[in-house]
Amino acid sequence: MQVRFKLWLEEGGEQVFGEGIYELLLAVERLGSINQAARFLHMSYRQAWGHIQKTERRLGVKLLVRQVGGPAGGGARLTPEAEDMLRRYHSFCLDVGKSLNDLYARHFIHPADG
Amino acid sequence: MQVRFKLWLEEGGEQVFGEGIYELLLAVERLGSINQAARFLHMSYRQAWGHIQKTERRLGVKLLVRQVGGPAGGGARLTPEAEDMLRRYHSFCLDVGKSLNDLYARHFIHPADG
Repeated sequence: MQVRFKLWLEEGGEQVFGEGIYELLLAVERLGSINQAARFLHMSYRQAWGHIQKTERRLGVKLLVRQVGGPAGGGARLTPEAEDMLRRYHSFCLDVGKSLNDLYARHFIHPADG
Repeated sequence: MQVRFKLWLEEGGEQVFGEGIYELLLAVERLGSINQAARFLHMSYRQAWGHIQKTERRLGVKLLVRQVGGPAGGGARLTPEAEDMLRRYHSFCLDVGKSLNDLYARHFIHPADG
């Protein structure tokens, strides 16, 4: 057996940050556009942009700089605050994974060592 | 903000044990009957018994002793293996909660201390 988990950050009972927005911001970072990120994740532009705006409101932080129009047809890039959030969330999830495996072993595999 | 989580144990991609079966077994332990536990959790008897049988199969362990009929109309009690599983899962979840709060603080609140 192995342990699996899902985690998210909440404020006042509302989800503020989790796997969904993490993947979405990562896709915007890689593809340079909300539209392409949405397509990559099989979402509508409206859903993607709505999710980003909701997260910005709840975090109280601007996550994207949008470039409308222009020769390349516009695009979006992450703010330094969004980059920081992605980096923290990623290393947080890695540490959580390690900790959960250790705790699983302690409680279910070698309880006598715990 | 605070961190929230959901966790479960898997084997070969299939969920073996999680919050649902934990609550169900706990209710059987308290109420002494699958039927009453199911009603308490707003499930059908069929769903509850199905979930228990599936978990027994996947864990390879008998979880309940059923007493059919009798003056009290039958009932069910947990096997020592089920009691042990509940105890481990509960203390595992408590430790996971503590660890996640510590890791959250380290990554999001006091990253410089980490």
